[in-house]
Amino acid sequence: MIIDCHGHYTTVPDEMNDYRNAQLADLANLSRGDVSEKITDDQLRESLEGAQIRLQRERGTDMTIFSPRASAMAHHLGSEKANIYWAEHWNNLIYRICQLYPERFAPVGMLPQFPGVNPKNCIPEIERMVNELGFIGINLNPDPTGGFWTDPPLFDEWWYPVYEKMAELDIPAMVHVSQTKNPAFHFTGTHYLNADLTAFMQFLTSDVLDKFPTLRFIIPHGGGAAPYHWGRYRGLAQDNKWTPVQERIKDQVFFDTCVYHQPGIDLLFKVVPMDNILFGSEMVGAVRGIDPETGFNYDDTKRYVDALGLNDAQRTQVYEGNVRKVFPRFKG
Amino acid sequence: MIIDCHGHYTTVPDEMNDYRNAQLADLANLSRGDVSEKITDDQLRESLEGAQIRLQRERGTDMTIFSPRASAMAHHLGSEKANIYWAEHWNNLIYRICQLYPERFAPVGMLPQFPGVNPKNCIPEIERMVNELGFIGINLNPDPTGGFWTDPPLFDEWWYPVYEKMAELDIPAMVHVSQTKNPAFHFTGTHYLNADLTAFMQFLTSDVLDKFPTLRFIIPHGGGAAPYHWGRYRGLAQDNKWTPVQERIKDQVFFDTCVYHQPGIDLLFKVVPMDNILFGSEMVGAVRGIDPETGFNYDDTKRYVDALGLNDAQRTQVYEGNVRKVFPRFKG
Repeated sequence: MIIDCHGHYTTVPDEMNDYRNAQLADLANLSRGDVSEKITDDQLRESLEGAQIRLQRERGTDMTIFSPRASAMAHHLGSEKANIYWAEHWNNLIYRICQLYPERFAPVGMLPQFPGVNPKNCIPEIERMVNELGFIGINLNPDPTGGFWTDPPLFDEWWYPVYEKMAELDIPAMVHVSQTKNPAFHFTGTHYLNADLTAFMQFLTSDVLDKFPTLRFIIPHGGGAAPYHWGRYRGLAQDNKWTPVQERIKDQVFFDTCVYHQPGIDLLFKVVPMDNILFGSEMVGAVRGIDPETGFNYDDTKRYVDALGLNDAQRTQVYEGNVRKVFPRFKG
Repeated sequence: MIIDCHGHYTTVPDEMNDYRNAQLADLANLSRGDVSEKITDDQLRESLEGAQIRLQRERGTDMTIFSPRASAMAHHLGSEKANIYWAEHWNNLIYRICQLYPERFAPVGMLPQFPGVNPKNCIPEIERMVNELGFIGINLNPDPTGGFWTDPPLFDEWWYPVYEKMAELDIPAMVHVSQTKNPAFHFTGTHYLNADLTAFMQFLTSDVLDKFPTLRFIIPHGGGAAPYHWGRYRGLAQDNKWTPVQERIKDQVFFDTCVYHQPGIDLLFKVVPMDNILFGSEMVGAVRGIDPETGFNYDDTKRYVDALGLNDAQRTQVYEGNVRKVFPRFKG
C-alpha cells in the first residue's frame, strides 16, 4: 500500500472562500452558518475526481492523509471565535470526504488557532475530530501570527495542553504554517520552508520531546533546510552538548518527501535515517507544473523515491510502515 | 590561489565586547571612544595567529575575505548613533588586520544599520570603507530587527540608496543577518539559514535585480534551503511566470560553500551552476567541532569541494575566479 502522508484539500468549492470572506468582513456579527453542510456530495466528488483522485490513480498512490488547505487556515485572520467556526467547517468537509472515499483519504484536521490565544482552546475541536469523527492526526501551526513569530516557540509550556491531549489520544501533528502577512516572506516559497527549519531547531534545542516522549511530529517539505545542512546540525548539537540529532529525532520527528527534484530526495535519503522518512507529495499543492527536465510534475515525488532503488522492505517502510507507526489510528 | 569568500573576525579581543556592553548600558550618553585604536597590533596578531591563520595554513587556504563578526553586528541593539560608532570600530579593526596581513585577509565591512532607520544613513560609512580604507564589499543585514522582519524586504525602495552606492562603487554585498532576539529562532541554526532563503525568494519574486543589473549579492550558507528545494523554486518560477531561477541568479546571485557535510556540497554543485558558487567556510564560526564521521572539522569545506573531483578550470573558477568576478576591487 502506498500512503501519501501529506495532502491538502486545495480544490475546495468556492462556497468556502465566500464564507470566509463574509466572516472576515463582519467579525462583529459572527454566526456559525452551515456552509460545510450545504456543499453537496456531488460537489465534493467533482472537486476531487479530476484532481487529487486522478493524480492518485496516475501516480499509483493508494491513500492520502488528507487535511484542510494549508493556506486557507490563515490563523492570523479572523478572531478566536471566527476561527473555531472556520476550523469546524473545514474539518467537517474532510470528514465527509473520508466517508465518501474511505479507500482514498484518511482525515487529519486543522486547529482553531488565533494569535495570542492559548492553544488549549483547540482541545474541544481536537476531541471532536478524534473521538467523534475518527481523525488520525492534526496540523499544528507553529506561527499563527502569519510570519511575525510573536507567539511562543513550540518548546514553551504554552503548547503543553495540546501536547497532553495529543499524547492521550495517541495522535501525531504535522507542523505546518499557513499564509503570511509579512511581506518579507513568500508563503509557499519562504514561510513554509523557514517554518520547517524553525520547528526542527526548536525541537533540537529544547527538552520538549523528552518531556513528552510519545509525541510525534512530522516536519513537512523534506524537513525544510535541515537535511541539506545536516552536518551543521550534527555539529551544533555536538558543540552545544544537545542530544545528538539522530537520537533527538528518533521515534518523534519525521520528514516527508515533499522535495521536488531528484537530487533533493537523494540527499534526504542519504543523511536522514529511513525510520524518519514518510512518503508525501502535497499534491495538489504549491507547485503544479511539469518539470521540463523530466517531463513529469515537479510534485510527483513518488518517481524520485522509486528511482532510489530501495529494496522491498525499505519501500514498504517509507511508503506504508512509517506512516502506520506515526499514525496508529490509521486502520486503512 | 584559494580564496575563502566568507570569514568573520570571531576571535576579536574582549575590549570590543566591553565597549559594546558599556554603550548598551548607557545609550543616552554615547561617545565614540577609541576602542579600535587602543587594541594593539600584537593583540590583533595574537587573536588571529592561533585561529584563522593557523586554519588557513592547515587547510591550504591562501586568502580570506574578512568581515566583522556577524553575531556582533546586532543591529537590533543600540541606536542609530551607537551603531555608527560600533560599525566604525569594527571596520577599523578589519582594516588594520588587512594592513597587517595583506596576503591573508581582504576587507569587507559591516553597515551601521538600525531597525526603522533608512539605510541611506549607511552611505557615509560605505564611502569611507571603500574610498578611504580600500574595502572590497559589504555585509548587508536583511533583518536589522533581529528576527521580527518588520523592516522592508530587499526589493523595497527603502534599500535603493544602498544599491545605488554599491553600483557606483562596484562592490557586492553578502546578505548576512546577525543575532536574533526572537526566541522562535536559534541564531546560527535557524535565523541565518532562514534569512538566506528569505533573501533568495525576495530576489526571485521581484524585479530588483533588473532595476540594478550590475548588483551582485552573495547568499551565504550554501544558499540556505534553496538548493535542496531547487525543484520547488524552478517550479514556482515556472508556475508564476517569474524569471527562471537560473536566469534570475545569473551574474547577480551567488552561493558560498558553507555547507558542513559532503552530501550537501554534492547537492549544491549538482543543481547550482558553477558560475554561481564561491568557495567559503565561515571559519572560525558557527560550528567548530570535529565530525566523528570524517575525523575533520565540520567547517573544513575545502575537503568537500576537493572531493568533488573538479577539473583544474572548475577548481580555479570556484576557488578564485568567481570571487574575483564578484569582488572586482579585490586585487590580491
